[in-house]
Amino acid sequence: MASYTIHDHHHHFGWDNGLDPTQEIIPGDTVSFATIDASGGQLNKSSITKDVSNLDFAKVNPVTGPVYITGAEPGDALAVTIQEFTPSGWGWTANIPGFGLLAEDFGDPYLNIWTFDKDATKATFRDGISVPLKAFPGTIGVAPAEAGLHSVVPPRTCGGNLDIRDLSVGTTLYLPVHATGALFSVGDTHAAQGDGEVCGTAIESPMDITLSFELVKGANLPAPQFVTPGPVTRHHDDKGYYVTTGVRDNLMDAAKDAVRAMIDHLSKTYKLSAEDAYLLCSVGCDLRISEIVDMPNWVVSMYLPLALFS
Amino acid sequence: MASYTIHDHHHHFGWDNGLDPTQEIIPGDTVSFATIDASGGQLNKSSITKDVSNLDFAKVNPVTGPVYITGAEPGDALAVTIQEFTPSGWGWTANIPGFGLLAEDFGDPYLNIWTFDKDATKATFRDGISVPLKAFPGTIGVAPAEAGLHSVVPPRTCGGNLDIRDLSVGTTLYLPVHATGALFSVGDTHAAQGDGEVCGTAIESPMDITLSFELVKGANLPAPQFVTPGPVTRHHDDKGYYVTTGVRDNLMDAAKDAVRAMIDHLSKTYKLSAEDAYLLCSVGCDLRISEIVDMPNWVVSMYLPLALFS
Repeated sequence: MASYTIHDHHHHFGWDNGLDPTQEIIPGDTVSFATIDASGGQLNKSSITKDVSNLDFAKVNPVTGPVYITGAEPGDALAVTIQEFTPSGWGWTANIPGFGLLAEDFGDPYLNIWTFDKDATKATFRDGISVPLKAFPGTIGVAPAEAGLHSVVPPRTCGGNLDIRDLSVGTTLYLPVHATGALFSVGDTHAAQGDGEVCGTAIESPMDITLSFELVKGANLPAPQFVTPGPVTRHHDDKGYYVTTGVRDNLMDAAKDAVRAMIDHLSKTYKLSAEDAYLLCSVGCDLRISEIVDMPNWVVSMYLPLALFS
Repeated sequence: MASYTIHDHHHHFGWDNGLDPTQEIIPGDTVSFATIDASGGQLNKSSITKDVSNLDFAKVNPVTGPVYITGAEPGDALAVTIQEFTPSGWGWTANIPGFGLLAEDFGDPYLNIWTFDKDATKATFRDGISVPLKAFPGTIGVAPAEAGLHSVVPPRTCGGNLDIRDLSVGTTLYLPVHATGALFSVGDTHAAQGDGEVCGTAIESPMDITLSFELVKGANLPAPQFVTPGPVTRHHDDKGYYVTTGVRDNLMDAAKDAVRAMIDHLSKTYKLSAEDAYLLCSVGCDLRISEIVDMPNWVVSMYLPLALFS
């Protein structure tokens, strides 16, 4: 049971070690956070594509917090264990022009609204296609050392918009503390995402999240680290994968090639529009670096779980 | 059962569409290939680190073939199904100066010789540490369109030194045909490797490999694609993962940071030397792109399977 609840009116935009803490806690405490979705409440179950064009970017990606952890000092690691999510039963995935790995290919806004039972294990996308759900916070971090307001968009070595799919229930995340008290916040909860989040959004879904906190003194981690309680792909791996590759002398180009090939494969094989295929890559497919040593060409692969198809 | 056997004296160094075929086959045929390890036989079970310094690079990475597939034309895909491996029970992993993701950190040669039962599912590395085995060919491809001899080191869009860990038994690989007859060759067999092959070598292990061939006319694939018969990480995922991250504005730098953090973690937690930790990353840990869209910083993660430890 949580000792504290942080309501979603305690949210902020961007990271700033000068923000007043919402709550002070001690190591060992458990806290429930109510979060606002990454649109900051601008999108809802009845939103349509036009609403993506009207997004006010000053209001995106609010995070709930900050929470001050007594005793946390720069050099420590804040150990955050993901205890529980309370799903809301809906979410959105969008192509936002100018954002996403293939921004140059997808210039128009596009939106998909997902609805599902709160205890569902998958969400239907199109006829015969559904995405296994695995909830995690897209943005989870502590305040940077440097004073002032820092954009919430890029993740940093003290966490933030990490978008790491495997920060799911039971995982413990170790965040490098950069400011006294850590000043922890969380938000941008996702109901599902593939490694890479290639279109720039996941299944963006407001959720309550319960977290417990411990402190590892003097850990001096260079960047976030985490430990998972078990396998991380068994929610989608049982039917195997169809995999496309990019073979290039630049990892970014290789990744783009692999995603473009997957979009082409999805469009041809499952009669999806290019936009739907792009969104499906983002919420359901995984980017892996197959080799990074065979000079001068690297191989990046995109893994499509065949379990998406019934 | 294979219709043909290609013995390992039919090997060549580099790719060349002017090479005389060793064998002509038709779609539907199955062929067994005897391969030479990636050192070209220069390393063996009794090799020591000094032998890495003496490697003649003109003799590395021989591939067995080429096999001419009747009817294969540029634009087709050669579908190669991995049928069976005959393990040899030994292998090597080396740091070769100037090669590998962290070449700037590891300037000295280093060698580990692995021995295991031919039917073993894992190979012992150090006391309490063993690596699950999953055999695949590191180099598998067809001749490039351009005439002349091309180095075997970089993979190309017609395959080659792909080093894709999941090209294991039951997987079908689709290789873009770039030259008439395809001119298929295979070698560089690996007993185990992590995604990335970060030190530049896997468990390099000579093996016989049996493959069957089909042709997909006019597939026009931009790069290799493959389909796996089932899950790809269950050989190592049951205990979960310890994961390090790199958060940088360049995927290559992020990957290096993630691997350096993992080497540090392995050294501190399991009392491994930096060299041993680097080799273990290469043969047993996986590089994934966690996010590639949160401008300007990307997250690359290295996954250490906790199943490596007893």
